[in-house]
Formats: sequence, structure tokens, C-alpha cells
Amino acid sequence: MSEKKILFVTAAKNLARMFWNAEGERKAKQYGFNVVVPAFDADLTNPDWTSQLADYDAIITTWGSPVCTEEFLKSAPKAKVIGHCAGSVAAVVDESTYNTDVHVTTSNPVMAEAVAEWSLMATILAQRNLTKYAMLRKNERMNWPETGNMHDIKKMTIGIWGMGDTTRHLLKMLAPLRPGRILIASNHSSAEDLAALGAEKATLEEVLAQADVFHCLVGVSKENYHRLGEKEFALLKDGATFVNGGRARLAQEEPLLKVLQSGRISAILDVFYQEPLPDDSPFYQLDNVILTPHNAGYTGRDRFLPFLLDEFNRFFHGEPMQSEITKKRFLTMTNERLR
Amino acid sequence: MSEKKILFVTAAKNLARMFWNAEGERKAKQYGFNVVVPAFDADLTNPDWTSQLADYDAIITTWGSPVCTEEFLKSAPKAKVIGHCAGSVAAVVDESTYNTDVHVTTSNPVMAEAVAEWSLMATILAQRNLTKYAMLRKNERMNWPETGNMHDIKKMTIGIWGMGDTTRHLLKMLAPLRPGRILIASNHSSAEDLAALGAEKATLEEVLAQADVFHCLVGVSKENYHRLGEKEFALLKDGATFVNGGRARLAQEEPLLKVLQSGRISAILDVFYQEPLPDDSPFYQLDNVILTPHNAGYTGRDRFLPFLLDEFNRFFHGEPMQSEITKKRFLTMTNERLR
Repeated sequence: MSEKKILFVTAAKNLARMFWNAEGERKAKQYGFNVVVPAFDADLTNPDWTSQLADYDAIITTWGSPVCTEEFLKSAPKAKVIGHCAGSVAAVVDESTYNTDVHVTTSNPVMAEAVAEWSLMATILAQRNLTKYAMLRKNERMNWPETGNMHDIKKMTIGIWGMGDTTRHLLKMLAPLRPGRILIASNHSSAEDLAALGAEKATLEEVLAQADVFHCLVGVSKENYHRLGEKEFALLKDGATFVNGGRARLAQEEPLLKVLQSGRISAILDVFYQEPLPDDSPFYQLDNVILTPHNAGYTGRDRFLPFLLDEFNRFFHGEPMQSEITKKRFLTMTNERLR
Repeated sequence: MSEKKILFVTAAKNLARMFWNAEGERKAKQYGFNVVVPAFDADLTNPDWTSQLADYDAIITTWGSPVCTEEFLKSAPKAKVIGHCAGSVAAVVDESTYNTDVHVTTSNPVMAEAVAEWSLMATILAQRNLTKYAMLRKNERMNWPETGNMHDIKKMTIGIWGMGDTTRHLLKMLAPLRPGRILIASNHSSAEDLAALGAEKATLEEVLAQADVFHCLVGVSKENYHRLGEKEFALLKDGATFVNGGRARLAQEEPLLKVLQSGRISAILDVFYQEPLPDDSPFYQLDNVILTPHNAGYTGRDRFLPFLLDEFNRFFHGEPMQSEITKKRFLTMTNERLR
């Protein structure tokens, strides 16, 4: 196979450097790919990508990349595959993309596994109530003995809203801990499908009312946008932990803040309305939260671009890609997503 | 079967109340057991257990209970089974116990699973370097974005010293995270046994030198007592995390403190030479440690005593107990343990 030329369409040096690593270089060499990364040495200012794309066989996008519309793709007549070096492709592809013969893939499966790993950590932190007795900072003292706030995971109910890649990985990771019950609210999975994964199907309201730990792992759709408000938070049990490693806008911000300020529940949050979270955010004044800087999905980031090169290699050899976003799947996604 | 009488031989109210719970009562009723808990209402002062044991069919011991020697057991002619409501039986049984026809069991398997759960948590905390960027205390601010110190578990080496119940559970819990490598130092397991569990056999020195996270989960034997000193800590890689959810005395205290004070490695510790850890301990002045108050094994504590009642029920029906400590196993244990 002749050398394939691939353009990493990002203007951001930090993203170019984060993703274009030694493993990517090794794979590119192995597969005979020439990967061009214009932003590797410096941020680009308003790059004119359309004037550069004529020769490329594939395009890599990431956060902040231009939308690969039908019009945009006219400047890339040889490129028949786009790989999105991030999660959801909704920001870099639109319906017109599917008027062309270009195929779309994404490193979302890699990120989903990392978010599941964060969600597992959050589950155990909530179960063991670590922040209540551990020494986590220099000069703190342990609360000894402090066992009253630890829970037996065998008797806990883990609630999950959404049944996608992340939940699928999380279920595998939770299985050896043998949680008491796992309840899942999902519009797309049957009770039988969930039972096969060791979980029970329930309504969102039932999951909220019964969960000791409640995970938001659903996509943001028109239906789900701001879905959790005062009424929904009131359903949570006293002492429950609200965990959001998914999307901030699934929950209304003020009602979440209010229920946390009441002290009735705790929270572990990775996503926020404004990011970085402003220093004067009232979330910083709570003593019943753990906050992480939207990095739940980062532990797999070294593998995002290598994963896409594997996908491109499959594509160029006429094999099916593992994470292709077909038009059908894209339409479901976009229906589910608030753009 | 006629009602069986069982005595919980502890003088400590806090232990009596921690272990004798509703689930135990339910099981006792189900099995027709009359469980007597003398310390339930108040601590006992020098109780004379030998004058009370004549009528009992089984004995429950825990931390601080008397040693059930051959001599002691003469006062309990009907008791043919001892259940230890804790981990290792080394403190409540001695070789003379096995001159009698009394059988011994322990809730150790329940505790081992809880310690494995803590070890899993410690692994993920080390991998994700949580304390370096998260808001864990009121009025802290997140370090945003902080991703440089997060590791990809797929590329990490998890080292484990010891291959017992806890390691067995930990291996199951780690499997879905797909760590890069798992190295185990064990005198009692073959390379083939470990390979079947997804791990590689190595010497203690090899494990120390290669681990990104090093777990101490071996028993304390004459050979292992104080085994880790300056030379061994020097083998650990820069930035490695030393995790001890097992026994404090596997490591020499001063060399551990010194290597931590140097900042070259981090640690997550649940066990200490003096417990509770004194407020003026130099361990509290480190900024590269997470300390928990010897409660790694506590999340299963509600099931310790119910587990023993299940064991007694099996015993009274002539069935094999799941966690029986035979003389052979006891002799291995005691050879391995520092009494």
C-alpha cells in the first residue's frame, strides 16, 4: 500500500502535543502513514484548512476542530475517512457529512473506558466515605477509629442513568465487587439486556429514589437537558452520593447546589457549567463534595490517536472499523444530543 | 436439631455491638442458635470465661479474646467448634488447641475481600494521582487542568507481595481495568498458578524494582518481619507508590519514613506501628501520603458474625466448613506469622 497522508486538523498546540506521541509515531511508521501535525510547534491563528487538504487521505479532528460539512469536504477529495480524537463526533460532523462517501470514526471507546474507571473510583470513595476519616493533606489528622460512615457494597444500590459505552465498562468493573443491586434507567435497553449485564431496568425516578450512589452517564438530548431539578434531587435518599462524570447540563445547576448546601446528599463531580470552574464558585465552599477538573476521561488519552491510526489502517484495508459512526448511529446521537 | 448454644467470648462492648447485628440475629433464629453476648451492654472486667463455658456448643472469638488452649477448652467439653470473628486465628488458637477435637474457622475470607476493595481504591488513587488536583476539602481550588501526573493503567505495572485470599480477590477486581502487568512475589505459588490468575511470578526484588504501585499483602513471618528496609525502598522507581493494607511490620518504620520524606516515592497506608497513630507522628507531616485508620477490612464487618453462623450450621450438619483452619494450615500460618 502506498504511503497514506493524514492531516491532524487542530490549531491548538496543547492538543497536538497531547495526542501526537511516540506510540502514534510508531504505529504511523508501521502502517506507512505520513501524519502531518501543523500545530505541533505553535498555536495556529485562523488556519485555512481548505487550502491544505487536497492531498490528504484521512483527517484527524479533535476538540475545536472545524465541522467537516459536505462543503468543507469538497476541499479534501481524496479523504474518505475522518477520525475524531476525542469523544462524541457531534461537534465536528453534521448531517451533510453523510451526503458524501466519507466514513467517520472516533476514539470514544477509549475515553469511555477511562470515564468508567473514574466512575469506579467515585463509587468506592462514596462507599468508603474516604474524605471523612483519611489524612489526605499534610498536617491533617486521621479520624480514628471512623467506621460508622463506611458502607458494605454488597448491601448498596448503585444507580446509573444511561446505558452506553461508559456504563458497559463500569458494569464490568463493578462486577467483582458484587454490589447489592445495580439499577439502570435507559430508554434504549430492555430489561432482558440489562439483566444479562447483571443490572435491573428501572425508571429514572425509581433509580433516583433507591440509589445509594447515582451516576449520570447518559447523553445530553433535548429530553435529558436540565432533566434533573429540584423535584428529582428531592427523590434522592438522605446520605446518597450524586456522581456526575458525564455532562454538567443533565442537572440544573442551582437545584444541585441547593441540595448540596443543605447537606442532605453528597456529590462527586467532574463536569461543570463553566470550565475551568471559577475560583469564586459556590461549589468550592461545600464540605460534602469531591471535585475533579474534567479529567475523568484523560487516563486513556495517550491511546486516542494510536486507536484512530488502527481504525484508519482497518479502513484502508477494507476492513470494518471498530468505532465507525454510521449515518444511522449519527442520527440517533444527534437526536440525543443538544448541539 | 436441638438448639445450639453459642458464646461470644469478648469483654469489649464495642466489638460485641459491632458484630452482633440484625443479620446475625436473623440467622441465629433460622438455624436454631442461642447466641449469648455477655459484653453487649457493658465492657466486662476480667471475666472468668472458664466458669461459663460448660453448656456451650460453639465459641466465637475476636480481637482480644482469650487463647483457646487445650487447657482452656477443658472448661468447654461440649464445644467442638471455634469461630474467629476477625482475620488470622494466630492470636486465639495455639498448637495445643489441635490436641483436642475442636475445629477452628474464621471470617478471614470476608475481611480479605474488603481489604482487596481498599487495595483497588488505593491503586486507582495512585494511578490517577487524585490528591494532586482534586478539591477534597472545603475552600480548596482544583488544579485545572492537571493531567500530567495521571497514568494509564494499561501501561502500569502493579506489584504485589504475597498470594493469599486478599491478593486473589484483588486480582479479580483489577482484571477489568486491564493493567499493563501484574507481578507477584510469592514463595507458595508457582509461575503457572500465577499465570492462570493473569499475573507473573517474580522475586521480591524484581517486583520492588518494576512496580508503579507496590502492595504489601503477605503474612508476617520470621522471614518477612522487617523485610523491607533502606535497601529495598531504594529499589522502588522514582514516583512509585508504596501501598500497605496488610501489616505495618513488613516494613521497617524509619527507612519508610526517610524515603517518603525524600519525596522520591508516595505511599498509601492503612497500618502503623502504633495504633491509633499518635498525633505527633512524622507521617502526618508528609504531603505525599494518604493514610487511613486501619479500616481497610471494615466494610465487610457486618458479615463477619453471620458468616461464622453459616460455618457453624455447616459444621453441626456434618458439612465441611468453607474457612476451616486445619492443623496443617495452622502450622503453616504460625510458621509464617510472628506471634
